[in-house]
Amino acid sequence: MFQQSAIWLDGTPTSVLPLPDRGLDYGDGLFETLLVHRGQPLYTELHMGRMAHGLRALALPDCLKDARQQLESSAYTAFNQYKWQWSVLRLSVTRGSGQRGYAPFANALPRILIQIGCLDRDGGQMNTAATLGVASIRLSKQPLLAGIKHLNRLEQVLAAAQAQAEGADECIMLDQTDHLTCVVAGNLFLVRSGKLLTPKLSDCGVLGTRRRLIMEKWAPSIGLEVREVRLKLSDLLTAEEVFYSNSLQTVRPIFRLREQNWDNHNVCTALFQRYLEELS
Amino acid sequence: MFQQSAIWLDGTPTSVLPLPDRGLDYGDGLFETLLVHRGQPLYTELHMGRMAHGLRALALPDCLKDARQQLESSAYTAFNQYKWQWSVLRLSVTRGSGQRGYAPFANALPRILIQIGCLDRDGGQMNTAATLGVASIRLSKQPLLAGIKHLNRLEQVLAAAQAQAEGADECIMLDQTDHLTCVVAGNLFLVRSGKLLTPKLSDCGVLGTRRRLIMEKWAPSIGLEVREVRLKLSDLLTAEEVFYSNSLQTVRPIFRLREQNWDNHNVCTALFQRYLEELS
Repeated sequence: MFQQSAIWLDGTPTSVLPLPDRGLDYGDGLFETLLVHRGQPLYTELHMGRMAHGLRALALPDCLKDARQQLESSAYTAFNQYKWQWSVLRLSVTRGSGQRGYAPFANALPRILIQIGCLDRDGGQMNTAATLGVASIRLSKQPLLAGIKHLNRLEQVLAAAQAQAEGADECIMLDQTDHLTCVVAGNLFLVRSGKLLTPKLSDCGVLGTRRRLIMEKWAPSIGLEVREVRLKLSDLLTAEEVFYSNSLQTVRPIFRLREQNWDNHNVCTALFQRYLEELS
Repeated sequence: MFQQSAIWLDGTPTSVLPLPDRGLDYGDGLFETLLVHRGQPLYTELHMGRMAHGLRALALPDCLKDARQQLESSAYTAFNQYKWQWSVLRLSVTRGSGQRGYAPFANALPRILIQIGCLDRDGGQMNTAATLGVASIRLSKQPLLAGIKHLNRLEQVLAAAQAQAEGADECIMLDQTDHLTCVVAGNLFLVRSGKLLTPKLSDCGVLGTRRRLIMEKWAPSIGLEVREVRLKLSDLLTAEEVFYSNSLQTVRPIFRLREQNWDNHNVCTALFQRYLEELS
């Protein structure tokens, strides 16, 4: 929780957003959630890479350099003030103000919003294994917005509300054709026959920074090949091991979904170990 | 444009939004755009009815009574101050602040935001006929959010940007299976063989207040039956007459799409006449 938190808008501390703002009016913007260790945001390059992709997809002005500079300086300032060992930094970029109506203003001045709060756990410890539900809402197919982390997140809100109501830690999200996509706040991985499998994300879902690290670096370094495939819920229920990844938890084992239990978290544990080696 | 405008938050004049707010973070909220004539919002009942549907769909606390009271009082105050004959009122409801993460806060206190600006035309005159483009982006299928006017509007933003770039007044939006859905900011109507046709909106699109008036009241009153059907672009190109509806323009004739021109605006004109009769 951001019980205590600090907020900056365009580099200046604040607690409010000037109105109107297209981020609020239409979800016209992007965000990134970064894990910060002793004032140092982790894997900034990967987050900025995804944001660059998002800025192009939404035809937003390129404010990447400013965003990066502000997030680094805010993380440093917050650490000096609060001494949080582990904190969460949310970077949001909106298309700023502009005329009424959906059409973007040609001279849009994007706003850069940064919020930092203390992480509610130790980012150097692997999280306990999670219980999963299955979201009733199916992710909609939208290839032009798939992969990026934009501000239109009602599907995730409704799914998270359901997981919370059912007492599950996380929730599987299927697409409109009932294929596995992700969990609400993370990417999904299955171990089957010694291979690491993860859903293709060309129609929906977010291309996670840790997903990329696992696919390109961490899994190969422990001798595992990763394949992007189309998967059904039945593939998950018969998998040898299941886990998810996101920026705050890195990787988190999955322990139960319905009647299925998993005691084997070997791959997840090995990947978390690789992360710890990079951290030190 | 809201070049000059007035803003209220929870009944108090303001120019800023307290942070964090889930409307900004996730598009977690709803909005309505009302036409206001001499301080009097038009068809408030229909807008409130759609918002009630939206509040239930998003499991937002029922703040309808407050929203209605605030929009009426703001419209009245703005008219007294600015004397705008015609103005635009945007009512937004967000889930307010809350803990970090997608899951809604059980004790969410919704925020009610009202913005009023002068309308850039005479709401008592039918708008000039529009030229249309066809949006490249296809609306995604999401039955659980279809019909309501939520804050996740990136598809509309991208389509409106395209229409603007192509110099079209409005833009047809197709769904993922290439069926007609709507225009970016309005509902679509076709006259074919003396019948009025409009796309079904069970998978995507917004159930417009003026669409409902046309279907239930105005079209029957001029002896026209309205059918909700699945339509393709070819149906539109061979229609006898084409127009769209929204709260600010009521109905607006369509004049051209690609090589197709329409000179016949009889039904649209007759419907606008019905609106004028109700207004007086």
